[in-house]
Amino acid sequence: MNVLWIMADQLRWDYLSCYGHPSLRTPNLDALAQRGVRFDRAYVQSPICGASRMSFYTGRYVRSHGSTWNGFPLRVGELTLGDHLAPLGVRTVLVGKTHMAADIEGMVRLGIDPNSAIGVRVAQCGFEPYERDDGLHPDGGYDPDPRYDEYLRQRGFGGDNPWDRWANSAEDPDGRILSGWLMRNCDRPARIPEEHSETPYITRRAMDFMSEARGPWLCHLSYIKPHWPYIAPAPYHDMYGIDDIVPPVRNAAERSTDHPLYRAYQNHRVCQAFARDEVRERVIPAYMGLVKQIDDQLGILFAFMERKGLMRDTMIVFTSDHGDYLGDHWLGEKDFFHDAAVKAPLIFYDPRPAADATRGSSCDLLVEGIDLVPTFLEFFGGTPKPHIIEGRSLAPILHGRGDADWRKYAISEYDYATRDARIELGLDQADARLIMVRDRRWKYIHAEGFRPMLFDLEADPDELIDLGADEALEPVRQRLRDAIFRWACRHHNRTTLTPQRIDSMAGAEPPGILIGFWDEDEVERALSRGRPRGRR
Amino acid sequence: MNVLWIMADQLRWDYLSCYGHPSLRTPNLDALAQRGVRFDRAYVQSPICGASRMSFYTGRYVRSHGSTWNGFPLRVGELTLGDHLAPLGVRTVLVGKTHMAADIEGMVRLGIDPNSAIGVRVAQCGFEPYERDDGLHPDGGYDPDPRYDEYLRQRGFGGDNPWDRWANSAEDPDGRILSGWLMRNCDRPARIPEEHSETPYITRRAMDFMSEARGPWLCHLSYIKPHWPYIAPAPYHDMYGIDDIVPPVRNAAERSTDHPLYRAYQNHRVCQAFARDEVRERVIPAYMGLVKQIDDQLGILFAFMERKGLMRDTMIVFTSDHGDYLGDHWLGEKDFFHDAAVKAPLIFYDPRPAADATRGSSCDLLVEGIDLVPTFLEFFGGTPKPHIIEGRSLAPILHGRGDADWRKYAISEYDYATRDARIELGLDQADARLIMVRDRRWKYIHAEGFRPMLFDLEADPDELIDLGADEALEPVRQRLRDAIFRWACRHHNRTTLTPQRIDSMAGAEPPGILIGFWDEDEVERALSRGRPRGRR
Repeated sequence: MNVLWIMADQLRWDYLSCYGHPSLRTPNLDALAQRGVRFDRAYVQSPICGASRMSFYTGRYVRSHGSTWNGFPLRVGELTLGDHLAPLGVRTVLVGKTHMAADIEGMVRLGIDPNSAIGVRVAQCGFEPYERDDGLHPDGGYDPDPRYDEYLRQRGFGGDNPWDRWANSAEDPDGRILSGWLMRNCDRPARIPEEHSETPYITRRAMDFMSEARGPWLCHLSYIKPHWPYIAPAPYHDMYGIDDIVPPVRNAAERSTDHPLYRAYQNHRVCQAFARDEVRERVIPAYMGLVKQIDDQLGILFAFMERKGLMRDTMIVFTSDHGDYLGDHWLGEKDFFHDAAVKAPLIFYDPRPAADATRGSSCDLLVEGIDLVPTFLEFFGGTPKPHIIEGRSLAPILHGRGDADWRKYAISEYDYATRDARIELGLDQADARLIMVRDRRWKYIHAEGFRPMLFDLEADPDELIDLGADEALEPVRQRLRDAIFRWACRHHNRTTLTPQRIDSMAGAEPPGILIGFWDEDEVERALSRGRPRGRR
Repeated sequence: MNVLWIMADQLRWDYLSCYGHPSLRTPNLDALAQRGVRFDRAYVQSPICGASRMSFYTGRYVRSHGSTWNGFPLRVGELTLGDHLAPLGVRTVLVGKTHMAADIEGMVRLGIDPNSAIGVRVAQCGFEPYERDDGLHPDGGYDPDPRYDEYLRQRGFGGDNPWDRWANSAEDPDGRILSGWLMRNCDRPARIPEEHSETPYITRRAMDFMSEARGPWLCHLSYIKPHWPYIAPAPYHDMYGIDDIVPPVRNAAERSTDHPLYRAYQNHRVCQAFARDEVRERVIPAYMGLVKQIDDQLGILFAFMERKGLMRDTMIVFTSDHGDYLGDHWLGEKDFFHDAAVKAPLIFYDPRPAADATRGSSCDLLVEGIDLVPTFLEFFGGTPKPHIIEGRSLAPILHGRGDADWRKYAISEYDYATRDARIELGLDQADARLIMVRDRRWKYIHAEGFRPMLFDLEADPDELIDLGADEALEPVRQRLRDAIFRWACRHHNRTTLTPQRIDSMAGAEPPGILIGFWDEDEVERALSRGRPRGRR
């Protein structure tokens, strides 16, 4: 039994045809959804790469793992997927991106050699780095000279930074290099044959792994695309045009919002850029091309797996770490809580016969990124660890065994301590925190120091009408605020004892500890009724 | 410069004469208070040994360090006092009790050898265990054969468990052994000469350390007494009598409370016991004797330090890990939030001239156990670490530099997952959590699943009138609940980056990452205004 866990970076939930995109066709992912379950309300725990991924990899909320933003190291001691699967004999392998920053200071403090097997696991987010590639060279930067750069050089695409110079640049008719980072250049093809671009390269690396691996394994195939730079190789660079892009979801009332934080967000340079039609029309076709390329590569990969007989015993999961506003709501990038940013595509193909009942179905329960780790743990036969892992196994849903007791709220968080909006608003960095709670109808956004925002997703599925100051809805807001209160007050760090162990301590008293007894007769009477109680 | 940090176990704040006890005289601690500052509103972060101590030793709230109850291991990776002081060249030494349970599973996972220097620090709560003695043998139990037992055997007090058989037992006129655990026996003397009982023994061990130590050091002298067993050696066993004990603070309305949790607490065996006058009259004189013995030993210790010249450059702190109900409010032990349990004595003697302005004064600001670590860090010249340490240095108060911006609320937590009350109420162990918030006037207790409790400490300093259901006070409760909300929503685990580092990330962009730019002109314009912003 194996797991292939595919993650795209910055892929909006609605940019796949199985999620309803009107012009982007993704037949391979559609086919996967036909063989599995498509989750229509999957929320990531933070709409930003690093924090979201640390939640995916730990099965814990952002407040629990503490890595609240990109490059904020994951505390040494936090358990990751690999820690949970290793005792089950499962290799947990990375092919691609994690965006994990190691807690080097903590490792030094604890004397963990980064070159030891344990040190590599700690520093690599629990993964065996078959090939780590965070993209964005040199900033992705855990490896100053990544294997992909060497791969390009061997094929004649040389220089200090071939990732930048070839795979993520274009050129003008005079041969001058045009950076793929600059959105003006997004309609041009990358300076590289498609087969050598990042998505096919990393897909082949996953096939390399599968060819040589003996199970059980979990392979995390983690694409850097369609994340910035928004530049695609031919033929994907002009596969889509202006007529293929959907209009922006936004209105004038949003533009004139009285909410200081939302207004400050709109002032971010990237948001101002995506407010311009010119930018959307240049970027979105490239973005769609990059998504299409991933789907094509997955077609190749799934065919390979069929040939290898791997489809029979490999669970396949496809998701994204967060979305991309692409100009919706007058925003660019991610970083906030509209569905464009915080909802992810999530497709689960479970090869077990128990999942036959749900194949081709969709599910509108509120699921979270943190649900993947416990699902994988269950798949490999592990014991649940609710004292550490805060997500819930999706197996009951995949197997059609009902959902009566499913969670009522999905939660996501955002720490904007490093963002311009925090500077503009003059906030203390400790207060630059947002918490979203979403139930089946409402989405409530707690912004410390400001009034909340509120959306009625039934009446206003596009989230255009902020009801955060609507007096009639105070009871709704109070209920959702109470949900955050309960969630925030929960134990997030009581991780060192299992529930079974805690239960065994309740009512138990070790020999020799006798709290609250007057005399021996009373001890005897207590013993005759069972164990004496009241341990200290 | 050194620190002597003295902690008593289960010592109520008001059982010292400098805190107003009418019949118990503690001249040595009174004299220390005269040379320093007496804090009159010092709250521990949980009214239970283990959780409170882990907060004292980490400078972090219970929800942050996660060790919510006795024997719940402190997660590997949590930083303790010793971790903070070691880089400053300070030896952080333990003489006595910590009640720390090591996260052995975590240490194995990270390959930390428990016998290495790092392993010992991790397993010993950051201390160099000059002598660890958690008392309560064999359950205190980190060491199956503690040095104190060997000490007793060498003096003819033999057997498997001389701690129990001699130091914590009495005997009847026929020479039969009577357990010190049983409250009926509390008026008898322990079977040991006073000089060999635990308090003088561990005091001498502290003097042994000071005799051989070269500074700078921090010595944590941590007494197990006046904690159970409530048995004192002669002459302390009958130094106080029934006429010396103060009447219980309780009334009939409390006994008939409608609050299910408070009622369930009253049903605990130890609480039922302390509701009986017979129990109070037998236990409290012994408890007072044990406190008196500590004060006498501290007199010897302080005289020793004067002779050694240590009083000139040693900060001395005296506190307790929590109190003891002793029958007040129909409760025994600790475990809840009346001042009898959750308020601690706290005396700070700071030898620096800057503290001359405050000598002999008292302070009624809300201070917390987590304030000690940052105070020690400041004393030794360390850099503040507000991203990790949640307490605040008391130095500004000690030096009379004002308190305009001091905290408005003190917080304490309790996890009753292992207590009989949880079983009686049929709660899930995850929900057995309590949070107290106290401002200058009010004390509010959030009990998940129940109505809150509320006390007006101005009108009702004895906390006899629960206003948790008083309709007129809903605004007060809402305000205090909001305070808990804000506190619970704070970052508790964002510990791997300093505020300075986070600030440096705000508005900064590493070379090569260009999010949101249309073209090179725009980049140039941004560069000319300063660094480009909007890093991903």
